[in-house]
Amino acid sequence: MIKVGIVGGTGYTGVELLRILANHPDVKVDVITSRSEEGIRVADMFPNLRGHFDLAFTVPDVDRLATCDAVFFATPHGVAMSMAPELVERGVKVIDLGADFRIKDLELWSRWYGMEHTAPALAAEAVYGLPEVNREQIRSARMIACPGCYPTAVQLGYLPLVENGLIDHRRLIADCKSGVSGAGRGASVGTLLCETSESFKAYGAAGHRHLPEIKQGLSAAAGRPVGLTFVPHLTPMIRGIHATLYGVLKDPTDGLQALFEERYADEPFVDVMPAGSHPETRSVKGANYCRISIFRPQDDDTVVVLSVIDNLVKGAAGQAVQNLNILFGLDERAGLNLVGLMP
Amino acid sequence: MIKVGIVGGTGYTGVELLRILANHPDVKVDVITSRSEEGIRVADMFPNLRGHFDLAFTVPDVDRLATCDAVFFATPHGVAMSMAPELVERGVKVIDLGADFRIKDLELWSRWYGMEHTAPALAAEAVYGLPEVNREQIRSARMIACPGCYPTAVQLGYLPLVENGLIDHRRLIADCKSGVSGAGRGASVGTLLCETSESFKAYGAAGHRHLPEIKQGLSAAAGRPVGLTFVPHLTPMIRGIHATLYGVLKDPTDGLQALFEERYADEPFVDVMPAGSHPETRSVKGANYCRISIFRPQDDDTVVVLSVIDNLVKGAAGQAVQNLNILFGLDERAGLNLVGLMP
Amino acid sequence: MIKVGIVGGTGYTGVELLRILANHPDVKVDVITSRSEEGIRVADMFPNLRGHFDLAFTVPDVDRLATCDAVFFATPHGVAMSMAPELVERGVKVIDLGADFRIKDLELWSRWYGMEHTAPALAAEAVYGLPEVNREQIRSARMIACPGCYPTAVQLGYLPLVENGLIDHRRLIADCKSGVSGAGRGASVGTLLCETSESFKAYGAAGHRHLPEIKQGLSAAAGRPVGLTFVPHLTPMIRGIHATLYGVLKDPTDGLQALFEERYADEPFVDVMPAGSHPETRSVKGANYCRISIFRPQDDDTVVVLSVIDNLVKGAAGQAVQNLNILFGLDERAGLNLVGLMP
Amino acid sequence: MIKVGIVGGTGYTGVELLRILANHPDVKVDVITSRSEEGIRVADMFPNLRGHFDLAFTVPDVDRLATCDAVFFATPHGVAMSMAPELVERGVKVIDLGADFRIKDLELWSRWYGMEHTAPALAAEAVYGLPEVNREQIRSARMIACPGCYPTAVQLGYLPLVENGLIDHRRLIADCKSGVSGAGRGASVGTLLCETSESFKAYGAAGHRHLPEIKQGLSAAAGRPVGLTFVPHLTPMIRGIHATLYGVLKDPTDGLQALFEERYADEPFVDVMPAGSHPETRSVKGANYCRISIFRPQDDDTVVVLSVIDNLVKGAAGQAVQNLNILFGLDERAGLNLVGLMP
Repeated sequence: MIKVGIVGGTGYTGVELLRILANHPDVKVDVITSRSEEGIRVADMFPNLRGHFDLAFTVPDVDRLATCDAVFFATPHGVAMSMAPELVERGVKVIDLGADFRIKDLELWSRWYGMEHTAPALAAEAVYGLPEVNREQIRSARMIACPGCYPTAVQLGYLPLVENGLIDHRRLIADCKSGVSGAGRGASVGTLLCETSESFKAYGAAGHRHLPEIKQGLSAAAGRPVGLTFVPHLTPMIRGIHATLYGVLKDPTDGLQALFEERYADEPFVDVMPAGSHPETRSVKGANYCRISIFRPQDDDTVVVLSVIDNLVKGAAGQAVQNLNILFGLDERAGLNLVGLMP
Repeated sequence: MIKVGIVGGTGYTGVELLRILANHPDVKVDVITSRSEEGIRVADMFPNLRGHFDLAFTVPDVDRLATCDAVFFATPHGVAMSMAPELVERGVKVIDLGADFRIKDLELWSRWYGMEHTAPALAAEAVYGLPEVNREQIRSARMIACPGCYPTAVQLGYLPLVENGLIDHRRLIADCKSGVSGAGRGASVGTLLCETSESFKAYGAAGHRHLPEIKQGLSAAAGRPVGLTFVPHLTPMIRGIHATLYGVLKDPTDGLQALFEERYADEPFVDVMPAGSHPETRSVKGANYCRISIFRPQDDDTVVVLSVIDNLVKGAAGQAVQNLNILFGLDERAGLNLVGLMP
Repeated sequence: MIKVGIVGGTGYTGVELLRILANHPDVKVDVITSRSEEGIRVADMFPNLRGHFDLAFTVPDVDRLATCDAVFFATPHGVAMSMAPELVERGVKVIDLGADFRIKDLELWSRWYGMEHTAPALAAEAVYGLPEVNREQIRSARMIACPGCYPTAVQLGYLPLVENGLIDHRRLIADCKSGVSGAGRGASVGTLLCETSESFKAYGAAGHRHLPEIKQGLSAAAGRPVGLTFVPHLTPMIRGIHATLYGVLKDPTDGLQALFEERYADEPFVDVMPAGSHPETRSVKGANYCRISIFRPQDDDTVVVLSVIDNLVKGAAGQAVQNLNILFGLDERAGLNLVGLMP
Repeated sequence: MIKVGIVGGTGYTGVELLRILANHPDVKVDVITSRSEEGIRVADMFPNLRGHFDLAFTVPDVDRLATCDAVFFATPHGVAMSMAPELVERGVKVIDLGADFRIKDLELWSRWYGMEHTAPALAAEAVYGLPEVNREQIRSARMIACPGCYPTAVQLGYLPLVENGLIDHRRLIADCKSGVSGAGRGASVGTLLCETSESFKAYGAAGHRHLPEIKQGLSAAAGRPVGLTFVPHLTPMIRGIHATLYGVLKDPTDGLQALFEERYADEPFVDVMPAGSHPETRSVKGANYCRISIFRPQDDDTVVVLSVIDNLVKGAAGQAVQNLNILFGLDERAGLNLVGLMP
C-alpha cells in the first residue's frame, strides 16, 4: 500500500480526495492535516465519510508527512511552496492541487497571485500534471502541479486544434461556466445559496488567475504565444465546468470529429462524444472524465468545442489521483472507476 | 380601461402576462383562451393568481376576441398567423409573443419553423416590437411581433457597437445561457428537474431558431449582413437569460462605457451598469429590465458585453406589455414597476 | 406621504422591505441605516433596486430617525430594544421585525436569546403584530413586534382549531420546512449553496427560539398552556415556509373546511384553499399571502393542516408593511398587491 | 460471475442499478430490456455509463431472461407479477424493485394499486427485502419484494421503538420529504424543474400507496396493528428522503440512543449518528446508508427520529443489490462501497 498524506483536508478538494481514496485498492491515507480542526475526526466533519475513515485532523508537520510515500496539498496558494521543497528533498512525491507550481514564469505568477514565490527551483522542476500532455514526464517527476479546473477543461478542448495549427491562434475565446464548489468552502456572502441559486453571472471578466495558466499550456502546444479571451461564469449548481470554446478555422474541414477521436483514442479519461451530441456536466458528476463534442455551426469557419468536467474530480482530486497512479506505476484507472451520478 | 384578450393562457408567458396585468392601472383582462382547459378558472390552474383574477379559460373565438381593444398571442408558432389577420382587420391591435411575425424573409422563416406562412401580408406589415429600436413604428402599428428572449438580450447588448460600426460585423459570437422556463410548460423528459438540475449543457449548437431573428435585427442595425455564431445553453434555474457577447474592435477604445450609457440614456428598461460590474440574472428576476455591462479584457481589441434579462418578462410578457403601453399612448412604464426578486 | 426609516437595511428582510416599499403609494423611505455600509448606495449593494431608490446607508442616529413617522427595525435581536424606547417616546411608531418584543415573559426571552432585556416596559406595552389576531390593538399601538416567520405560518394554521378547542391542546406537532433565506445574509459555511443545495435536514430539533413564541400565541388562543413539538427543517430553496401541523381531534368532524373558511373570510392575506388542495410555497413567492389547506387522512381523528408563506414577506417584511398600513389607517392592502412569482 | 438481467432499464432505478453494478466484483449485467428503446445502447441514453457498458436494450423475453441467475424488475407495478412466476419456476431469483409483491393482503393491494393481482401464490411466498428485518428469510428466498423508498426510511427509523413497545402504537406520525426523482422519469408537467424548483409542497396528504406497506411492516414489528399518519412532501432536489418520525413515549427515558445503537450495531448500512446530530440527505447521496438520529425535545414524552436515505440507493437499487448479495451468499457490502457525494 502506498502511504499518502493530505495537507489541508477541510476544503472541497480535500474531502473529495478522501471520497476517492476510500476505495483506492493500493493507497492508504495515513495522515490528514488541518490547523483549525486539529483533533476533529474527518468523519465528524464530513458525515459522508462515516464508516470509511477513522482519521483525525492533525497539525501539519513535515517530519510526520515525510513518512508518507506521497503528499497531496489541497491548500490555498502559498502553502505548498512553503513545505514541498523539504518533502521532495526527503524523497516524498508531492502533488499540489493548488496553484503554486503551475506557472513557469514566476514574475507572471507573482503578478496574478500577489505574493513572492519562495520555491523557484522546485517550480522550475515541477511537472504540470495534465496526463494527456505530460504523461511521460509525470512518471519520473518528484513534484506535480495539478492543473486548475478551468485550465483542464479548456486545454483538453483546444489541444487537438492548437497542436495541429488548425485555428487562428490569436483569437481563442473560452466562455466557461462553473458550479459554485469551484469557489471553495470558505464562509462568504457571495457563495451563499440565497446569493447564487436561481441566478447566473459572469465574474472576473476583466481577468482571472487561470488565464495565464491556460495561455502557457496552449502556447506550448501551439509552439507560439496564443491570444485568449477567457470569461468565467458562475452557474447555480454545486459541481461541474462547461467550457464553450470558439476558434476560427484556417481551413474549414469536416475532419474535426475524427481528429479529436484519434487524439484521445488511448486516453482513459477523455471521452469524445458522438457527432452532434451536447455533453452535460451531470454525465461526469463525481467521475474523472472529460467529455468533449465538436461543432461547426452552419458549416462555417467557426469551430465550437464543448468540454465538460467535474471541477472537483478531473478538475482537482481525480486528476491528482490519476497523477499518483502514473507516478507509482499503477493502473492509471485505479480508484477512478467512478460513474457519473445521473440523475 | 383597455380591454385585452390572451390567446393561449396556460403556458409560462401566459401566466406571466396575467401576473403583470393584475396590477396594470389601465388594462382589464377580459378573455383568456385555452382549448384544453376550457372552463377551468385560471386561479385554479395557477394558485398564485387566487384573489387577483376570476376568469375562466374559454375556447378561442374570433368574434369574442374582436370585442377586445388588444389581443396577446402567447402561443406556439402557427397559431397567431391563423387568427391575427381577421382580428387586425376588425380593428384589434395584435401583439404576438410567439414567432410567427418576427422574420421578414418568409422563406427563411419556413425553413426554420417547418411550415408555410399563411399570413404573408400581415408579416410584411408587422412591426418588430423592440421599443429600443422601433418605438416610433410601434406607436402606429396594427400588428406587433414581440422579439424572442435570446434576441432581446443579444440585440440590446450588441446594438451600440453594431450601429456605430465599431466591431468586425463578420465575427460576432453570442454565448447565451437560459433558465429552463424558456423551454416552456410542456411535459417533457428533457426539462424535468431531475434532468436539468445540477447540470449545465449547450443545446442547438448546430443551429437554433433565434439565429435568423438576431441576424436580421443586427444586420439592419449594421447596414449590412452580419456573421454570427450563436450557442445557447441551459442553466439550472427557472428564469433568466445571460448573454455573453464577443466582438473584435476595429479601433480599441476606452469610450465604450460612455457609448452605451448615451445610447440607452432615455430608455426606461435598459440599465447600463457601472464599469466593472457583472450583472446577475437575479437582479432582473420578475422585472422588465435589461442590465448590461461592457468589458475590454486586458485592454485588448476584444470587447465583451454582458446582457441579462428575465426571459419571461423583458424577454416575453413584460416587453409585450411595454409594447401595449406604447401602442395605446400610455406611460411606457405602466404596470411595469416591477422590482427584481432578490434574494 | 408617510416618512419611514429602516434600521439595518443590509439583510434579507431589509432589502425585501425596500422592494415592497418601492411601490407603496403612501410611503416614502427617508432613511436607511447600516453601520458597516455607511455611504454605500442601497442600489449598489442590491442592484435589483437600481432605478427605484437613490438612498445611501447612514450610521443609525436616533435624532435622524426621530424625524420619521415610523421606523422599521430589520436587525438581529438586541438592537431594537436599545433604540426603540426613545423613538417611541418621541412619537415615532416602531415596527420591529426582530425578536426583541415578541415574548412577554422576559425571563423566558432571556433564556432563549441569551441576554438581558433592556426595555421591559416597552416589551410589556408592545403589540404582537399578527393582524389576524390583534388587528384592533395594532391600530392604536406605539410599538409593534412582528411575528417570526415560523410562528406566523404555524399560528395561522392552528388558530381555528385551537380557538375553538377542537384538538388536544397538549399534543400539537409542527413539522416546519424553511428556505435558506430564513438563516439570513451572514457569511456562514452552513448556508453556502454547496452545503445546502441538493440536501435536506432538520435543525434545532432539540429546541428552537420560535418555540416559546408559538406556544405563547397558541396558549393565548386556547385559553390554557399548549404542548407543542416543533421541528424546523432546511429545504434547498431561497424563500418559503411550509408548516405541516398535526392535531388529535377531540370529536372528528367533516366541518373543518367550513370552519377555516369562516375564520378567515374577511382576512385579505389568508387564503383557505379548496378542499383537497396542497398549497405550494411558490404560489406565495414574493407575495403576502398565507395559503392553508386542511386534511383529515382516512377520515380518522388526526387533522393535518398545511400552511405556507413566503418567510420574507408574510413572515417578515410584508407583514411589517401590513402592520404599518393598519397603524396609519391606510388600506391594509396598500403596497401589498404582490402576486406570487410562478414559475 | 453472477449473470443478471434488468427488466425496465430506462427509469431512474434502472440506470441506478447499472451505475452500481458497473463496479460490482461478482456480477455481470447480461441483458437489459425496454420495449420502447429496443436497440438503443444504454450508454447512448445515459452518457454517464459511457465506457462502462456496451449493452443495448432488448424487448423483454422470458426465455432470454431465464438464462440469467437473477432478474431485477425496475418497472411500474403490474409488470413484475406478469413475468416473475415463470422465471421463478425456471430457477431464476427474482428481485422486484416495484410494488407488486410488497403487500401480503392482496385485497388491500388491489384497492391502492387499482388492479387485480395475477400472481397470488408468488405474492404469498415473496420475502419482503428489508435485510434489517428479514435477512434470514432472504437467504433462501426465490422472490424478493424490495421495500419502497418511504417505507425503508420510516421502518428503519421506527423499528427499535416499535419492536420494544416503547411508544403508543396508535399515534405514529411520519412526516416525510422526498427529492423529485422519487416521482420517476416520465414526462410530466408536475415534475418539471420550473414546477418543482424553488418550491415545497405536500402531496397525497389524504392517502399514499406507501401507507399500507409501512403499516404492514410496523404492525408486524409491534405485534399488533399500528395507527399511522403519513404525509409525504416534495422537496426541490433530485435525490434523498428525510423522514421525521414522531411518537409518544409510554415511559420517557434517556436510553433511546443506546437502544438504537444496539439494534443496528451489526448492520452494515444503518448508521446511528452521535446524539444531537441532524443527518443530512446529502451525506447518503449516491450511497446505500440509512442515517438515523434520535431526539427527545425538552426531555418530554415525545420522541423524534430523523431518518435519511437516498431514495434511489437504499430506497431502491442499492437495497436490491444488497438483497442480491445476501441471496447469493456474497459479502453483503459487495459493490456497495459507495461514499456519499458531498458536496
